[in-house]
Amino acid sequence: MASPRGTVRALILAGGSGTRLWPLSTDLRPKPFLTLTGSESLIRQTFRRAESLCGAGNVWISGRRSHTELLRGELPELDEGRFVLEPERRNTAPAIALSALVAASPDDVLAVLPSDQAVRDEASFLSALRLAAGTAARERVFVTLGIPPTRPETGFGYLEAGEPDDGGVRPVLRFVEKPSPLKASEFLASGRFLWNAGIFLFPVDVLLAELDRLCPDVLAGARAAARARAEGDARRFAEAFSSCPSISIDYAVMERTPTVKTVACSCGWSDVGSWEAVREFRSADAGGAADDNVTEGPAEIVAGRGNLVLSRRPVRLIGLSDVVVIEAPDGLLVMRSGSSDALRKSVEEGLRT
Amino acid sequence: MASPRGTVRALILAGGSGTRLWPLSTDLRPKPFLTLTGSESLIRQTFRRAESLCGAGNVWISGRRSHTELLRGELPELDEGRFVLEPERRNTAPAIALSALVAASPDDVLAVLPSDQAVRDEASFLSALRLAAGTAARERVFVTLGIPPTRPETGFGYLEAGEPDDGGVRPVLRFVEKPSPLKASEFLASGRFLWNAGIFLFPVDVLLAELDRLCPDVLAGARAAARARAEGDARRFAEAFSSCPSISIDYAVMERTPTVKTVACSCGWSDVGSWEAVREFRSADAGGAADDNVTEGPAEIVAGRGNLVLSRRPVRLIGLSDVVVIEAPDGLLVMRSGSSDALRKSVEEGLRT
Repeated sequence: MASPRGTVRALILAGGSGTRLWPLSTDLRPKPFLTLTGSESLIRQTFRRAESLCGAGNVWISGRRSHTELLRGELPELDEGRFVLEPERRNTAPAIALSALVAASPDDVLAVLPSDQAVRDEASFLSALRLAAGTAARERVFVTLGIPPTRPETGFGYLEAGEPDDGGVRPVLRFVEKPSPLKASEFLASGRFLWNAGIFLFPVDVLLAELDRLCPDVLAGARAAARARAEGDARRFAEAFSSCPSISIDYAVMERTPTVKTVACSCGWSDVGSWEAVREFRSADAGGAADDNVTEGPAEIVAGRGNLVLSRRPVRLIGLSDVVVIEAPDGLLVMRSGSSDALRKSVEEGLRT
Repeated sequence: MASPRGTVRALILAGGSGTRLWPLSTDLRPKPFLTLTGSESLIRQTFRRAESLCGAGNVWISGRRSHTELLRGELPELDEGRFVLEPERRNTAPAIALSALVAASPDDVLAVLPSDQAVRDEASFLSALRLAAGTAARERVFVTLGIPPTRPETGFGYLEAGEPDDGGVRPVLRFVEKPSPLKASEFLASGRFLWNAGIFLFPVDVLLAELDRLCPDVLAGARAAARARAEGDARRFAEAFSSCPSISIDYAVMERTPTVKTVACSCGWSDVGSWEAVREFRSADAGGAADDNVTEGPAEIVAGRGNLVLSRRPVRLIGLSDVVVIEAPDGLLVMRSGSSDALRKSVEEGLRT
């Protein structure tokens, strides 16, 4: 077994949004900046994980330029240079390529962490992350954290894992797109499939080589942008970054590279991707009240169970179960649990008023 | 047939409240002052009816002293002296007795109108009211407007009516308390029962005589209060008024006096006593949309019907039917239609926060 080399650095991806969390999540203050679980924002919680992995001095942030103030507010301990800010959204591959060039050396391992996920068991998560980072550093392979599925979810991608080695690290046999309900049930029953949480550990030299081989346009644009950034040329930076094709790291690299390994991580992970997910996370957090209601703020629920109510003002919810009520400055959501796709559609279409 | 004598005067009773209309109706701004139907408050609409009946110069208001500003704001054309303000609530008998003494002469007819009801067909209502007032003036009997029931309502009192005379006026055979569901269905089927809407026409001399005969304490307290009011003695006024037993005019007089007549009035009447009633009134008003949703403010309803949504802020209601959503400065209500009794109870118990 080779001994590890280079430094582990963390890259927090803060560019995402979330129409399924309206009215709290908006373009002006998207999901990473919301306090949906626990007492801190999701990005702040992610930063703490990254800090535990590699120290605050090795944490970098990829985000949107329009969110500069939000990012600084949440992460005041980071210098300006640690924020790699995009002039426009080009999906994850250009963001990761650029940040790898700006933040890391070829010998390093870059741990890519989405900024909008929650983890109940932080210790298990970190232990899996460390195992994955060590494997990536020693073996110079891509490693991903895999989440053992707890339901036949059709909204996530999956990865099929082979037999574990002595340390518990498993080869990824294939990546699978969002499956049908039938497939998802088979995956769940088989025990061989894990959710792809988008948490990747890249040996930087291998990442750059694979980007060069599999999507040279992304790497070329990222290199030009990194140079312009170093020279302080904002216009050229924006031009170069925008020249990158908009593509996810999954499509660009992960699904096409020959060797990926995975560390399975049972840590009460949640993508916090919908109000139902928020309710589930917080309900388990609360140990499960008898009526299974989850509330924040002055709410009274009469004759109802399985509800989620978040409000700053007094709410009375009467005679309804499995309902989501979210009161926020931008508006009010009242939704039957399980209607998140309809919510997303409605928000994307814009409020007809 | 005797010819009518005296003047018709209207007394609007504005002392009520409505816990079943939380969060819009509160003690600080109760139901009569809300704009729930049409573009004006319920009390303002009532005032217009009274004005049509007998002219603004003959309209008097019985209300709570704590609502002085609200009353003046809604009825700016009335002089201070037209407001008979109670220091505390003593139900309707003392309020009517006092106002009769203050506002009317024995020869007059006093038309008592609750201030918190809505009427769709104002012309029919006025025509019935005029027939009732004329009958009271000519025949010196109590006359009440009776509303032909449209559903087996168990929340109202009923009156059983006899055969109509040539003018369509019918004798009241008996008053019936809020019935059981079975009784209410029988009443509806029989065609002989009318809802008691609390709209009464009193020949003042007969009213005072019956008060004296049936509840002399109410009349004595009212007389002392009327004297103190004329002398401008606020302390004695409050003492005298508070000495009246708290009792409704129905219990005190109507159900015990030998002769009451009624005029049936099919006028799209509503007591606006619950959010369900508000929805029903406004739904019929709108001619009934295909999805039967009633909204006010920027609301989008996806996959739902039979909902009522009143909000000043953007609302999305998704995947729910027969739900009431009321957003107001004091709070937020989300309720399954038909849960108004639970709402009343919850409001009476106070918000547990």
